[in-house]
Amino acid sequence: MSNTRKIFKIALFASLGAVFSAAPALADNTTETTYVFNTFSFLFNGALVMFMAAGFAMLESGLVRSKNTATICLKNISLYAVAGIMFYLIGYNIMYTGVDGGFIGTFAPWAADDAAALAGKFDAGYSASSDWFFQMVFVATAASIVSGTVAERIKLWPFLVFTTVLTAVIYPITGAWQWGGGWLSKLGFADFAGSTLVHSVGGWAALSGAIILGARKGKFHADGSIQPFPGSNMPLATLGTFILWLGWFGFNGGSQLALGSAADVIAMANIYANTNMAAAAGIVAAMAMTQMMYKKVDLSLALNGAIGGLVSITAGPDTPTLGSAIIIGAIGGILVVLAVPLIDKLKIDDVVGALSAHLVCGIWGTMAVPFTNPDTHFSTQLIGVVSIGAFVLVTTSIVWLALKYTVGIRCSEEEEEIGSDKAELGMEAYPEFGRGSHTV
Amino acid sequence: MSNTRKIFKIALFASLGAVFSAAPALADNTTETTYVFNTFSFLFNGALVMFMAAGFAMLESGLVRSKNTATICLKNISLYAVAGIMFYLIGYNIMYTGVDGGFIGTFAPWAADDAAALAGKFDAGYSASSDWFFQMVFVATAASIVSGTVAERIKLWPFLVFTTVLTAVIYPITGAWQWGGGWLSKLGFADFAGSTLVHSVGGWAALSGAIILGARKGKFHADGSIQPFPGSNMPLATLGTFILWLGWFGFNGGSQLALGSAADVIAMANIYANTNMAAAAGIVAAMAMTQMMYKKVDLSLALNGAIGGLVSITAGPDTPTLGSAIIIGAIGGILVVLAVPLIDKLKIDDVVGALSAHLVCGIWGTMAVPFTNPDTHFSTQLIGVVSIGAFVLVTTSIVWLALKYTVGIRCSEEEEEIGSDKAELGMEAYPEFGRGSHTV
Amino acid sequence: MSNTRKIFKIALFASLGAVFSAAPALADNTTETTYVFNTFSFLFNGALVMFMAAGFAMLESGLVRSKNTATICLKNISLYAVAGIMFYLIGYNIMYTGVDGGFIGTFAPWAADDAAALAGKFDAGYSASSDWFFQMVFVATAASIVSGTVAERIKLWPFLVFTTVLTAVIYPITGAWQWGGGWLSKLGFADFAGSTLVHSVGGWAALSGAIILGARKGKFHADGSIQPFPGSNMPLATLGTFILWLGWFGFNGGSQLALGSAADVIAMANIYANTNMAAAAGIVAAMAMTQMMYKKVDLSLALNGAIGGLVSITAGPDTPTLGSAIIIGAIGGILVVLAVPLIDKLKIDDVVGALSAHLVCGIWGTMAVPFTNPDTHFSTQLIGVVSIGAFVLVTTSIVWLALKYTVGIRCSEEEEEIGSDKAELGMEAYPEFGRGSHTV
Repeated sequence: MSNTRKIFKIALFASLGAVFSAAPALADNTTETTYVFNTFSFLFNGALVMFMAAGFAMLESGLVRSKNTATICLKNISLYAVAGIMFYLIGYNIMYTGVDGGFIGTFAPWAADDAAALAGKFDAGYSASSDWFFQMVFVATAASIVSGTVAERIKLWPFLVFTTVLTAVIYPITGAWQWGGGWLSKLGFADFAGSTLVHSVGGWAALSGAIILGARKGKFHADGSIQPFPGSNMPLATLGTFILWLGWFGFNGGSQLALGSAADVIAMANIYANTNMAAAAGIVAAMAMTQMMYKKVDLSLALNGAIGGLVSITAGPDTPTLGSAIIIGAIGGILVVLAVPLIDKLKIDDVVGALSAHLVCGIWGTMAVPFTNPDTHFSTQLIGVVSIGAFVLVTTSIVWLALKYTVGIRCSEEEEEIGSDKAELGMEAYPEFGRGSHTV
Repeated sequence: MSNTRKIFKIALFASLGAVFSAAPALADNTTETTYVFNTFSFLFNGALVMFMAAGFAMLESGLVRSKNTATICLKNISLYAVAGIMFYLIGYNIMYTGVDGGFIGTFAPWAADDAAALAGKFDAGYSASSDWFFQMVFVATAASIVSGTVAERIKLWPFLVFTTVLTAVIYPITGAWQWGGGWLSKLGFADFAGSTLVHSVGGWAALSGAIILGARKGKFHADGSIQPFPGSNMPLATLGTFILWLGWFGFNGGSQLALGSAADVIAMANIYANTNMAAAAGIVAAMAMTQMMYKKVDLSLALNGAIGGLVSITAGPDTPTLGSAIIIGAIGGILVVLAVPLIDKLKIDDVVGALSAHLVCGIWGTMAVPFTNPDTHFSTQLIGVVSIGAFVLVTTSIVWLALKYTVGIRCSEEEEEIGSDKAELGMEAYPEFGRGSHTV
Repeated sequence: MSNTRKIFKIALFASLGAVFSAAPALADNTTETTYVFNTFSFLFNGALVMFMAAGFAMLESGLVRSKNTATICLKNISLYAVAGIMFYLIGYNIMYTGVDGGFIGTFAPWAADDAAALAGKFDAGYSASSDWFFQMVFVATAASIVSGTVAERIKLWPFLVFTTVLTAVIYPITGAWQWGGGWLSKLGFADFAGSTLVHSVGGWAALSGAIILGARKGKFHADGSIQPFPGSNMPLATLGTFILWLGWFGFNGGSQLALGSAADVIAMANIYANTNMAAAAGIVAAMAMTQMMYKKVDLSLALNGAIGGLVSITAGPDTPTLGSAIIIGAIGGILVVLAVPLIDKLKIDDVVGALSAHLVCGIWGTMAVPFTNPDTHFSTQLIGVVSIGAFVLVTTSIVWLALKYTVGIRCSEEEEEIGSDKAELGMEAYPEFGRGSHTV
C-alpha cells in the first residue's frame, strides 16, 4: 500500500486512495465495518501464508533424496514453530515499535492492545493480534527459504539455532528499515510484499549458509562435472509449488494491509490477478527456455519458474497491468533457468534451487518496480537491495561461522552417506519403499 | 444466481432476491460494503477454485503409473498457467464482451476498468479484476479435466497446444452462449456453476481426445478383456479428491457472484451445504454400488463417486434442499460406477475416469435442475446439453485431428513403454522407489 | 464466546462484548452487514475445518504401513461423508433443538429456515445453513480421530456402522449437554471449541475401540517388548499435520460463532494467534522432551506434539495471552511424549497416537481453562470431563461390543497379515513401490 507497513498504521484512513492517485477518498463504510474487513483480511490472507510452510515442506521433501526426507519435514515444521515463538518474544517489537526513521525498534515481547477498538474507537483500523499474526507468517516464510538450500548435510539443532537468530533479530532489523518505518522507507524504497525483505533475506541467509557449509559430498567432481541428485518424490514437489502459489495470494494480497474500502479491495483484486499471471508466465517461460537450451522440459525447473515468477511480482504486485505482470514473471522464470547452472558453476550447492528462485528473482522483482510504479526510483531500489543484502550476508555469515566453530553445523561424512533420517532421527521416511539404482 | 453471469453485471442490485422469489429486495447495506463483499467473494472463492488445479494434479498423479507421474504433474501445472494467459489474451472478451444474445464476443485482451468504482460509483458491484480472476480459474478447471483422460500416451507440447485452443476459443464460445448472455441464456438454459459449461465441456474435449488418440498400449486385449493399470499412489489420489471437494465450495458458492446481502450469503450457505451433501452422497452411493456389483469396495471408484456427486450438483446447487442434494449426488455416484465399465466396453481409454465423473454426471446434473428449480425446463436443458456437446465434440475433434496429422499427438510405442517421464522429460518421478511386479 | 453455542443464538446481539467485559456493546454495524459477516465466517472457517478431514487422511496414511494405506484413505473420506449425512438425518436436531437445560434434543432431519432474514429481519444473526455446515464439519472431526487409533485391523463396513452411530447419536447427545444448551452448560462448563466435546469424545470412542478390538498382531511381545511399526510415508504425515494446523484456525476461530463486530473479530484474531502459538509450543516442547528422553528427535512425536498443542488450546483459545497459549500448548506437547509410552505399556495399540494427542490433551486443555478464564471453575470442568468421558466410553463400548458379537469388527489373522488393502479392497496403495526389509 505504501512504503512502510508501520506508517500505514498511522495513516490508514487518510491514504486509502493512495495507490490510485486519481481516486477521491471513499468514506462510505462505517468505521466498524472497515475494522472488521481489515482484521479479517489479515486472518484470511495470513492463514494462506501460513500454509506456505506446508508448501515449502512438500517442495523440499520432493526435491531431496529419500534418505533425508523425514529430516527436511521436521526442519520445515519446527522452523515455522520457532519463527513464531521468536517473533513473539523479540522480533515483532524490534521490527515495528519505535523505529521511527532509524535502524532498530525496541526489545520486548509483543503484547496485544485492542482496548481502544473495544472502547468504540477504531483508529488503528484493525486488531493488533491480526496484524501480529500476518507479520509472523512472513518471518516464517523467510526461514523456510533457508532450509531448502542447506538441506541434506546440515545438522538439525544448529539449523534451528540459526533459525532462532534469523527470526528473532536479523529479519526484524532489515524489516524495521522498511516496513517498520526506518531509514529505507524514509528514502522511498518500495517493496510491497517482500521480494527483498522476505525472499532475498531468506536467499542471502541461504547463500552464506551454503558457502560456509560446503557442498554435499559428491556433488562437484574434481573434473568440474556436476553430479545430479534427482528429487525423490516429484508429485510432492509439484504439490508444494501449488500450495506456495495459493499461499502467495495471501502473501501479496494481504500486504495491501486493508480490505475495508473499494480502493483496498480493488487493489487486492489486482494483486491476486497479477500474482497469478506472474507465476503462470514464470512457468511457461521456464519451460520454453529449458526446451530451447536442453531440448527437453525439466519439471523441477518449471516448478522453480513458477516460484521465480511469484517472487518477481512480490515487490510491486499492485501497480502492473496483467500484461506487465506477465512480462515481469516471465523474466523471473528465465532468470531461474539461467541462474541454476551459474550457481552450480560457482560450486554453491543449492539443493532445491532456492537461490535462483528467491534471491535472484527477489533482486529482479525489486529492481523492476520502477517500470510500473512512477513513484519509485532505480537508485533507491538499488540502495535497498544492496544494503539489505550486505547486512544479511554479513550477519548470517557471522552466525553460521559461530555455529560452525562451536557446536558444528555439518553432519559427518558417514552420517551424510547414510542420510540424516537414519543418522539424526533414527528412522526412515519411506521404510517400505525399495531404493533403486539411482540412489547415491 | 441467474441464467447468465453477464446479465448479472447489469442487474446486480435489482435481482438480489431473485433466487428467493418471496423475499423483498434487501437494501440495508451500503453500496461500498456490498462492493467489498462481492469482490472479496470472488477472491476467496476463486482462490479455492485455483487450488482445484492442485487437486486434479494429485488425483491424476495418483491414478497414473509411476513412469508417467512427473509428466502428468507438469501438464497439470502448465495447463493452469496456459489457461490463465490465454483467457487474458483472448478468452475473456470472447466470452463476456458484446455477446448480447449472440454466439461470440469480441477479440481483444482483457483490461481492467475499475475507475468508476474509485470515483465513488459502485454500479458494477465488484471489481473487474476479481471477476476476471474468478472466471479465469473456471477455464483452467475445464482444461484440467482433459489431461487425466488422455494421460500416459499424449505428447506434452501438442497437449499444451490443444489446451491453448480450448481455453482461448472453444470454452469461451460455449461460455458466451450462456454466461456471456448469448442465445442459450435467452432461451432460459440453466447451469448455475457449470455442470455443462465447465465439466461437460472438459469431458467432451477429453472424449474426442481419447478416441482420436487411441487407447494405451495393452489396455484392451484382442479377446475383449481389459487390462487394469492400477494407480501408483492412492493417498495422492485421495488427497486430490479432498482438495477438489474443498475447491468446489468456491466453485459453486462463488458462482452466486455476490456476497453483499443477506439473500446472497444465505444462497451461498445453501450452496456450500448442498455441495457437501452431494459429494457425500456420491461417495456413499458409489461404495454401496461397488459392494453390490463386485462384492468389494473400490477406492478409485469411491473417489470418482465423490467427484460425480460434486459435478451433479453443480448445475443447480442453489435450489435443492439437503435431501434433494443427497439424491442428486447419490445418482451421480451410481452413474459413475455404471459408466466406467461401459466406457471400457466402448474401448475408450479414460485413464482417471474423468468421462464418467465429469461428462456423464455433467449431463445428469444439468438435466436434474428442473426437479428442484421450477423456472427451468427439461427441453431447454436438453438443448443446452446437446448444442454445447455437439459444438465442443466437433471443434475439439478438428483440433485433435489437425494436431495428429501435423506435429503428431501420440508418443511412440517405445516411449509409451518406457514412460513419458523418461521419454519426454528425461527423469523419473520416484527415482529411488523400486518398481514391483505390478508394473506394466 | 460463551458456554453454549445454542444460547448464542438467542443472545447474539446482547452479548457481543461478553468476552471483553470492560468493553461497551458496539452497535456501529448495520444488522445486514453483521448478518453477512457472521454467515460468511461459518462458511470460511467451516471450509477450513472440512479440510481437516484431508489432514487426518494424510496423517493416518503416512503413519500406517503401506499394506493398509488405501483402506485408511477410504475410511477417512467415507467417514466424512457418513458423518455429514447422519448429522443431517438425525444428529443436528438431537444436539441443538429443544434441549433446554436437559440431556437430548428432538429427532427429525435438519431443515433450513432463513425466511426471517429474507423478510428483512436479522434476529438469528446468521443463516441456518451456514451454522449447520459449521457444526457438521465438527462432528466429522470427532469421527476422524477414531479411524487412526483402530487402523490396520478393523473391518471397513463395521467401522462405518460405528461411525454412523457415533455421528448420529453419541456425539450429538454429549454435544447437546453443552453446546445445545443442556445441563452442563447450565452448570457453567466451558469448552470453547471442543477439547472435550470433539477431541476427547473422539478419543474415548477410539479408546474403547482399541481395547475391544485388541492390538495388532505382533505389536506386543510376550516378553513385554513392543514392536514398532514405522509409518510408511512420513512426508504425507507431515502434510497432514500442516493441514490440521491450518484447519484448526477455522476450528477455533470459527467457534467465536460471529464476525460482524469489532469485538468478534478481535476475539477471532486472538484465537488465531493463540492457536498458532499453542501448536508451535507443542512441537518445540515435544522435540525438546524426546531429545532429553531418547537423545534424538522423533518426527512422528513432533507432529503429534503440534496436534497435542492444538487440542490443548481448543477448550479456551480466546482468553489466554500469547505467552499463556505457549505454556498451555507446550504442556500439551510434553503430555503427548509422556503418554505414548504409557499407552504402549497398557498394551493399548493406538496406531497413530491419537489417544495421546486428542484424549489426553483434550482433558488437559479442558482443565486448563480456569487458569486464564476467571469465569470458569476446575470442579465444573472436571464434571464435564468425567461425565462426557463416562458416557462416551460406555455407549461406544456397547456399540463396539454389539458389532463384535454380531458382524464382527476385526480382520482375520490372514487378512491382517496380507494387509487390509489386498484383503478388503483387492488393491494396493503403491503397487509399483517395492517393499523393503522393514516391512512387518
